[in-house]
Amino acid sequence: MKEIVAGVDIGGTNTVFGLVDRAGKVIAESRFKTTDYPKINSFVTALVAGINKLLSGKKGYTFKGIGIGAPNANYHKGTIELAPNLAWKGIVPLADLIRKKINIPVVLTNDANAAAMGEMVFGGAKKMKDFIVLTLGTGLGSGIVINGQMVYGHTGFAGELGHTIIVPGGRDCGCGRQGCLETYASASGLVRTVLYLLSEMKEESILRNIPPAELTARKVAEAASKKDPVALEAFDFTAEKLAFGIFNAIGFSSPEAVFLFGGLANAGEILFEPVRKYVEMNVQPIFRGTVKILPSGIPESNAAVLGSAALIWNDL
Amino acid sequence: MKEIVAGVDIGGTNTVFGLVDRAGKVIAESRFKTTDYPKINSFVTALVAGINKLLSGKKGYTFKGIGIGAPNANYHKGTIELAPNLAWKGIVPLADLIRKKINIPVVLTNDANAAAMGEMVFGGAKKMKDFIVLTLGTGLGSGIVINGQMVYGHTGFAGELGHTIIVPGGRDCGCGRQGCLETYASASGLVRTVLYLLSEMKEESILRNIPPAELTARKVAEAASKKDPVALEAFDFTAEKLAFGIFNAIGFSSPEAVFLFGGLANAGEILFEPVRKYVEMNVQPIFRGTVKILPSGIPESNAAVLGSAALIWNDL
Repeated sequence: MKEIVAGVDIGGTNTVFGLVDRAGKVIAESRFKTTDYPKINSFVTALVAGINKLLSGKKGYTFKGIGIGAPNANYHKGTIELAPNLAWKGIVPLADLIRKKINIPVVLTNDANAAAMGEMVFGGAKKMKDFIVLTLGTGLGSGIVINGQMVYGHTGFAGELGHTIIVPGGRDCGCGRQGCLETYASASGLVRTVLYLLSEMKEESILRNIPPAELTARKVAEAASKKDPVALEAFDFTAEKLAFGIFNAIGFSSPEAVFLFGGLANAGEILFEPVRKYVEMNVQPIFRGTVKILPSGIPESNAAVLGSAALIWNDL
Repeated sequence: MKEIVAGVDIGGTNTVFGLVDRAGKVIAESRFKTTDYPKINSFVTALVAGINKLLSGKKGYTFKGIGIGAPNANYHKGTIELAPNLAWKGIVPLADLIRKKINIPVVLTNDANAAAMGEMVFGGAKKMKDFIVLTLGTGLGSGIVINGQMVYGHTGFAGELGHTIIVPGGRDCGCGRQGCLETYASASGLVRTVLYLLSEMKEESILRNIPPAELTARKVAEAASKKDPVALEAFDFTAEKLAFGIFNAIGFSSPEAVFLFGGLANAGEILFEPVRKYVEMNVQPIFRGTVKILPSGIPESNAAVLGSAALIWNDL
């Protein structure tokens, strides 16, 4: 019997889950709307039923466990705690609730940590013991691996590089503070930077014709690919801020590589090239030339499920 | 036969070494001037002779290994690399050189990592798996423990929190960059802050009567204990900057405690109280109330030898 696990990614809108073998092959995948289940018990019932349905179509496998990526997930406790984008309030003992329905190992962590596990088990960090994954979406998530182990810390919530303050007194952040890295180095940070630059620069720009509420990182990337001067400057500014977060993190854990993942990273060399430049320019001299800045080695379409599956494979 | 190790602390001026048992008792201790041995081979000869002399006076022990704390020490390679305050240039294979004289396990790391090992094995972090030690001397050194393991990173030089940039474009640092944490949060940073405040403030201060070249952190602490307004403000300013470095580090590894150690930490509550206040005020909400800011649990007189001894005990 071949062994198989389930990888689950719980997002504010969708929950995606799939069956994954040890080689990282997604055997089957399905999804439903997280928002259809405002009560946690009905969510758990739906999730277990969904996994069982996938399993019933695949004979010849031994089912070994469930790995889950979810916002505000606590690895130590198997809980989701005070997640602002989910309907379930308070501290949700998700791992316990699932184990009551299906007696099998269940582990969970946040989505950035799951992405890092995916990178280590199936992606570009297979042979690395020390690396960092930054997920550049609406916010900036991070998963940190040191000595081959995910860093969860005393609370289970370690790895919040998005909330490193890099500009004292800087931009308002959703965490209630100012100047956090993610207010600059994320898809939404890039959009904020465009608005700032439109106020600072006098150059013509196609971005002046888009209502701010409709601006997206993708539109900025498209403008940059057409050499729009504001869009180009916005990527340079964003790269400099992201590099700031990266070189301070390098001084902490001296990783072999930093992987950039998610929406903003899809912009490619227009982001990577200046990030590499600013990291090398500004990193402490002892670390110059020691850190690779890389795109993720995981296909983005499967990343969430593969990362969560990697989490449980790594624990088994 | 009771087991025993040697702990060695190599400083720019003095080399201190002692024999330490598993309980952390210093059985014998000696020292010589590092500067008396500008050639590494003669230094190694003197060190091994010194340890053998201590051992010859203590019968009934089995000698198990040597732990060394030294500037720019690389744990992975057993080398001292490009240390600006030592006479030995280039990359010095110290562990290998010692093992050629005395066939025994030899490990080395930098002094801040050794301090953290001392805290874990013999001090206030005995039951902790995640903590950080900051040594506040001329510079700011740091030793980081995650999952019960020292963080060395891919290069072996991880844990350089003193060179986290906290003020972009700020004070000139010895590393060639600007605004590093140690230019504010260290004994010399405190003195720089006094000079800055003497320019900013109009209040009377006994510190106005001391030539800047003769100002020390101790003199500032003495002035603060007499309620000197500039000295008090200098400690508050220093604490705020140190807190900045600490709360960003908390977001990285979510430690159970941060230990403050060395010259500046001896100022006691005049430093600790505002550091705790500024950390709680500014740390990401999810980590509020989760981190203790503590003085070291190791007596400072023995700290260097105990830390180095802890390093080898932990490896054995």
